[in-house]
Amino acid sequence: MSQDDPGRWDMEADIVVVGTGAAGSSAALFSHEDGARVIMLEKGRRYGGTTEKSGGILHMPNNSFMRDAGIKDERDDAIRYYARLAYPTLYNPNDSRFGLSEHQYSLIAAYYDNASATVDGLQKMGALDPTPWVEWDGKQFFPDYFAHLPENKAPRGRGLLAKDPTTGQAAGGVELIRQLKAAVDKREIPVLLRHRASRLVTNAQGEVIGIEATTDDEQTVAIRVRKGVIFGSGGFTQNPELRLTFLRGPVYGGCAVPTNQGDLIYMATGLGAQLENMSNAWWAQAVLESVLVNPSPPTDIFAVPGDSMIQVNRYGRRVLDEKFVYNERTQVHFQWDPVKAEYTNLFMIMIYDGRTADIWGSLPGSLSTYPIPSKDAPESYVISGETLEGLTSAIEARLAAITDRTGGFALDTAFAANLTETVARFNQFAEQGADLDFHRGETPIELAFHGPAAPGNDKPNRTMYPLSATGPYYGIILSGGTLDTKGGPKINDQAQILNTKDRPIPGLYGAGNCIGSPAGQAYWAGGGTIGPALTFGRIAAENATKEAPKDDE
Amino acid sequence: MSQDDPGRWDMEADIVVVGTGAAGSSAALFSHEDGARVIMLEKGRRYGGTTEKSGGILHMPNNSFMRDAGIKDERDDAIRYYARLAYPTLYNPNDSRFGLSEHQYSLIAAYYDNASATVDGLQKMGALDPTPWVEWDGKQFFPDYFAHLPENKAPRGRGLLAKDPTTGQAAGGVELIRQLKAAVDKREIPVLLRHRASRLVTNAQGEVIGIEATTDDEQTVAIRVRKGVIFGSGGFTQNPELRLTFLRGPVYGGCAVPTNQGDLIYMATGLGAQLENMSNAWWAQAVLESVLVNPSPPTDIFAVPGDSMIQVNRYGRRVLDEKFVYNERTQVHFQWDPVKAEYTNLFMIMIYDGRTADIWGSLPGSLSTYPIPSKDAPESYVISGETLEGLTSAIEARLAAITDRTGGFALDTAFAANLTETVARFNQFAEQGADLDFHRGETPIELAFHGPAAPGNDKPNRTMYPLSATGPYYGIILSGGTLDTKGGPKINDQAQILNTKDRPIPGLYGAGNCIGSPAGQAYWAGGGTIGPALTFGRIAAENATKEAPKDDE
Repeated sequence: MSQDDPGRWDMEADIVVVGTGAAGSSAALFSHEDGARVIMLEKGRRYGGTTEKSGGILHMPNNSFMRDAGIKDERDDAIRYYARLAYPTLYNPNDSRFGLSEHQYSLIAAYYDNASATVDGLQKMGALDPTPWVEWDGKQFFPDYFAHLPENKAPRGRGLLAKDPTTGQAAGGVELIRQLKAAVDKREIPVLLRHRASRLVTNAQGEVIGIEATTDDEQTVAIRVRKGVIFGSGGFTQNPELRLTFLRGPVYGGCAVPTNQGDLIYMATGLGAQLENMSNAWWAQAVLESVLVNPSPPTDIFAVPGDSMIQVNRYGRRVLDEKFVYNERTQVHFQWDPVKAEYTNLFMIMIYDGRTADIWGSLPGSLSTYPIPSKDAPESYVISGETLEGLTSAIEARLAAITDRTGGFALDTAFAANLTETVARFNQFAEQGADLDFHRGETPIELAFHGPAAPGNDKPNRTMYPLSATGPYYGIILSGGTLDTKGGPKINDQAQILNTKDRPIPGLYGAGNCIGSPAGQAYWAGGGTIGPALTFGRIAAENATKEAPKDDE
Repeated sequence: MSQDDPGRWDMEADIVVVGTGAAGSSAALFSHEDGARVIMLEKGRRYGGTTEKSGGILHMPNNSFMRDAGIKDERDDAIRYYARLAYPTLYNPNDSRFGLSEHQYSLIAAYYDNASATVDGLQKMGALDPTPWVEWDGKQFFPDYFAHLPENKAPRGRGLLAKDPTTGQAAGGVELIRQLKAAVDKREIPVLLRHRASRLVTNAQGEVIGIEATTDDEQTVAIRVRKGVIFGSGGFTQNPELRLTFLRGPVYGGCAVPTNQGDLIYMATGLGAQLENMSNAWWAQAVLESVLVNPSPPTDIFAVPGDSMIQVNRYGRRVLDEKFVYNERTQVHFQWDPVKAEYTNLFMIMIYDGRTADIWGSLPGSLSTYPIPSKDAPESYVISGETLEGLTSAIEARLAAITDRTGGFALDTAFAANLTETVARFNQFAEQGADLDFHRGETPIELAFHGPAAPGNDKPNRTMYPLSATGPYYGIILSGGTLDTKGGPKINDQAQILNTKDRPIPGLYGAGNCIGSPAGQAYWAGGGTIGPALTFGRIAAENATKEAPKDDE
């Protein structure tokens, strides 16, 4: 028995790759390198997916730059660090697999074992010119997000970026995609834009032997696939129903491209695929008023800018270290108040003073100033007031205008009074250099994200400065969001998609955010998304190209 | 095209019902009432599923007992209350559907519209003798779990129980299942125990025309189904991989029967079913040392017993209202500390003194004393110490013994010092009758769960009494757990399982914990599980029995 035979094939390839971000590009390039005829399908209008919008960092353990710098990134140590964060409730330092299942361990091990070779392979084929990710001072390698944990034995150096050939400087996702796409183009690998993978075709043995793609004008293109289909098609951030069905907390969008709607999930489960890691995502905060209009904003809020800046909840209370990593910070939005039956921190209000607005609004535009707008380009999502009371009233009015879309979220009546207390307490912390409540600025990653002390900040902890006693004050309403999700079909260490008996579905592979991530719930470091995506794209290519051609019937 | 034809059929029925709990029993009885030939499949060794282990409460809006008592439970008001809690981030009181999607609204409306008729129908066919659920004083109807919310216009009276014919008293799940099973037996509906539904069989049109069941000795029984298969087969609590893949927080088991392993999820998605509500569950706390041995313990911790009793986290701090509803309380276990990269409250320690041990250990055994053991039957999971310091050491030792299975969970070094402070502060609250931190004992449900003041408790808030200045003290390690999960294939208001285009999969129905619950993230009241299960069991039966017989091919 087989699925409907489309009757005719419009095209034929050894390997079809779905998606053109990091995972898809890597899979296509390595497949081509191994001699396969490759066709790429891209649902969107341009090449590059979410990778192009990203910071473009590759987290690659034990890479050649680390080795050249004399940094030892031992296999056991790296896997221990990854395991500790990916599965914190399973972690067991005394176990040979650190408490993980054979499956969970094997994915992390495959990542470690293949990461450096992936960078080297891309570099060798001229598809990537990598360079280390360094701190703002241009000297130190950028730290991992949990450089402060004792399990991390190589806390700096795993992050790489593509080097811009014009400037010679490390660059972001646009440059990374430019390099990967140039290599794809040079090899004349066909890329079918605006082609949405819509159906997998199997033969009587249940092997994947073809794929149908649907164009914008609802034409179907049927491609005969002789060896395998590799998905690198992104997560489901842009599908509100799937977010509600699967994610562990309320989010309102994220920088994933609009086409990331989880198409693979039901295509694969229809063939018996097992799902994994569905409740997790790469979390980040977003500007609520932006994502309500456009759930795929240009960027998320990564490093929260400002020193005379705090975030407070609807009660006017701080509940987090504002300078810590986006993935972790965002989970504060998910806290449920049992008795009141409300998400206490559903939205957080970022509050800062004129000084922080001036300083960060005058820096050259980059990730580390968003969402504080440039002085030259004000944003309507910034709420202002001459006093904290005035700001409170303005925020209340703004929330009232969108109440139909926020579950009726409003400030508590004690907000203004509490905010005054909160600011006073924070100002004391700033003077002392010690945040007794949330320990802001005490880890390497916070200092790296924050950058150098702002002009005039002579306080002992450069991430904090007292909020001014006089206005203006500014507020921005923040929601939970994602870079993208990280759950989907379960793969093995060959990047084969597995059925519910843990057996591979022949001819079906996956890498990147469309599959159950090897990272579990963790965001190990900058590039923790793209690093595994590139690596498992290569693993998929190496295995798919080795497959024997499959029969039609 | 069709799935493999099994070649022969061993049996034939109009309707096959999978599962023998509330949902399955209701589906079978109403199908039989409508003239269908029914076969029931039960994976376990006995009839009744998790319903038999439950409190046996039916939450049934606008039931006849309420109407007889003059309680108005208006449709719009009830749906508003349900919507407010099921989808708190979507809720909009100004919208005709309260902010819900047409689909979400339709399920809640179908529940309201069919609940009372379901009770009446079961009563009429002699399958249920219902009686109101009342408080310990035998007078007041038991309150809903959010009786204190302004959206709840009929906060008491929706809960019913089966009446024990011998005693004339309201009884629990054992009696509910006894009555339902007696009605099934009287009708000679075949019940195949130890038959696990293992494969759905479809014809060329994709209609479900059969089901295969596998016995303990791996024999396959193929049943031809002329009208439909109705699943009432429970959730996936007893499948650790699915818990990790889907649930929003770490849990270690729960009172769901051992057979609840999520079998429907992949059977249905293999036919193209859409999933819904996968990250939610009916949450409850569990005794960690019990669920590590047996992940399906006899009961969960519902109302936490004791007045001179608190729960603290690994820092020795209270973080919740110990007397609030189990579903909400449990979610405190899911809080993630971003910087430390730990689930701060992964395990909570329930601490009480000799007085509470004596009083609650001498009550007749019932849900409201667990996990405090009877004086006559000590439990090894109770840790004791003559002083708080001694208790702390004993807890540390106990945790050290199981560290390989707990992600290395241990008490913080400040635990004992903090605990002394915490007890002093709680004792002050108990004297004053006001818990300034978590407002313990301030809602109707807490007072109902707690019952009358314990002998000698003359304090103004009967849920609190100062912990004794002298030992012995006791501790029990608690984990998160579930009654069962509540995500699965999406159904419509006809209880038909839907594919990814929101079209019904012909001949496939579901009700109860195996499908995406109409309750979303909410636990509206006691019986919020069984009420919808019975109701959608009936809805499924009414629609499945109306289907035209389906062709083999």
